[in-house]
Amino acid sequence: MVDLRGGIDLGGTKIQTAIVDRDGTVSGEARRPTPTSGGPADVAGAMEEALREAAAAAAIEPKDLAGVGVGSPGDANGETGLVSSARNLPGWEGSFPLGETLAEALGTPVRIGNDVQVAVEGEHRLGAGRPYGSFLGVWWGTGVGGGIVLDGRPWLGRGAAAEIGHIVVERDGAICPCGRRGCMEAYAGRAAMEAEARRRHGGGEKTDLFKLMEKHGKPRLTSGIWARALDHGDDLATQLIERAIGALGTGVASACNVLDVEAVVIGGGLGDRFGKSHIDALREELLKHLFSDADPPRIELAALGDLGGAIGASLLVE
Amino acid sequence: MVDLRGGIDLGGTKIQTAIVDRDGTVSGEARRPTPTSGGPADVAGAMEEALREAAAAAAIEPKDLAGVGVGSPGDANGETGLVSSARNLPGWEGSFPLGETLAEALGTPVRIGNDVQVAVEGEHRLGAGRPYGSFLGVWWGTGVGGGIVLDGRPWLGRGAAAEIGHIVVERDGAICPCGRRGCMEAYAGRAAMEAEARRRHGGGEKTDLFKLMEKHGKPRLTSGIWARALDHGDDLATQLIERAIGALGTGVASACNVLDVEAVVIGGGLGDRFGKSHIDALREELLKHLFSDADPPRIELAALGDLGGAIGASLLVE
Repeated sequence: MVDLRGGIDLGGTKIQTAIVDRDGTVSGEARRPTPTSGGPADVAGAMEEALREAAAAAAIEPKDLAGVGVGSPGDANGETGLVSSARNLPGWEGSFPLGETLAEALGTPVRIGNDVQVAVEGEHRLGAGRPYGSFLGVWWGTGVGGGIVLDGRPWLGRGAAAEIGHIVVERDGAICPCGRRGCMEAYAGRAAMEAEARRRHGGGEKTDLFKLMEKHGKPRLTSGIWARALDHGDDLATQLIERAIGALGTGVASACNVLDVEAVVIGGGLGDRFGKSHIDALREELLKHLFSDADPPRIELAALGDLGGAIGASLLVE
Repeated sequence: MVDLRGGIDLGGTKIQTAIVDRDGTVSGEARRPTPTSGGPADVAGAMEEALREAAAAAAIEPKDLAGVGVGSPGDANGETGLVSSARNLPGWEGSFPLGETLAEALGTPVRIGNDVQVAVEGEHRLGAGRPYGSFLGVWWGTGVGGGIVLDGRPWLGRGAAAEIGHIVVERDGAICPCGRRGCMEAYAGRAAMEAEARRRHGGGEKTDLFKLMEKHGKPRLTSGIWARALDHGDDLATQLIERAIGALGTGVASACNVLDVEAVVIGGGLGDRFGKSHIDALREELLKHLFSDADPPRIELAALGDLGGAIGASLLVE
């Protein structure tokens, strides 16, 4: 008997789907760009299409899956299947019954989870977190999200634990997309970095970041654009990546001083892109502020790659 | 049959002992000043005397106790009973077999624990932490220590969790007694506050802090001296306490963004002294940086008072 599950990683840029067995082996996958207009129903429609395509590649009907898990941005309620305030998605300021909508469309049970939490759980059960009883997942992307595993289980607090992007690294510091000051994300999040680059470029600092963005037809400074600018030796890009690494090292050290976990697992769009090339710089910043610096946590890179979010989401299915 | 335990809180200034039953009721207590010269054996001798005095007050022989627990500064090893690097204590840079020494002297089993951890565990089982499944203990004193309870159990990490004093509140900020920069303790710890007051006073700023210290025959700026200076409207004292509260609120918010606990319990020498009068200011600073500000943790004051450390230590005895 087959025991295949669907996983959907709903991102601000793309929807990634996968058909996964209990051991994490992927037998089909598909992706779609996330709709940039319309509303939640249009996004749900694109998710359905992408999941159907992945299922076809795995030669299974969606209704024959054990279920489908979804990693969603915004406030994703696992109990009700409602997703609220997903502000990176079109027209999704309110609540939408994403779980129910997809379950009806696909004919199989659908479970909803937080995008970063499911990705971290994927690394915990199948990826870089496997050797560790406790670790902190650092998801470095548009924002800086996190996930915590303690004693082999996710620690969710009252539902909002691991908001590591909002660890303060500088009192009265830079304004964060969240509206507060001095958060780690205000220096290290892709969105905040882009805003700072735009501000400095507007103030006369030279950079090729925005030329590269236009040349490659991107609507924003993606991790790939940042990487190209670094390769060109772009001063502003180099400065802002170093500033981000400084903030990440500081904030992650603070989190480690609280948690004393065995390892830190770095993922997310920027993490996947720059984790490897900048791991020594990150470790150096971390050690500056780590209290137990004789016994630092291991630093690992997320192992599941682009499909990690979808694979992690599939684990929501019991 | 009696089931009484001894508890010893070994502090840099005083040794507090108590005889405690299973429910936390104290039937005898005694204190001694911590020896300021000599070495670990002298400190252990003073601990023995104080415990014997408390036992006499409770009409029990030390050998008839179920055991004695000790909350110790420095690196206190619960397995071996060794205490190392207790730098606030005379001649205690190395390791000393405190557990074994006291067990032989008192004729009863002795368990050693970390001073802040045992105080937090006391609040967890018998004090302000009782209603909560998860909380963060913030021990505001000479340094800023912490203790974490998650799912009703202490979270110790690899043995060095809850070093909340070394959460960074300002990158490249003030130098901390630990040697790093920008730690919460660099602004909020009593020792760092005293050093800053001395520096500013030396630089010409007016304050009565040091006059009050001499007048009351204290070797340092105790919490009582700070309180008197605040009562007199001393500008520098007021500024430094406000700066401490700002750093505490910021650092504790960062910890809460990581842990999302139900409550924060404030204890320690400065916490006991200023927690109540400054709770609104602390809450305001906390809310500035708390990500889940619609649902903040409860802020509670430690309930066991001066004897909390000794009562918590007694809980080390099974």
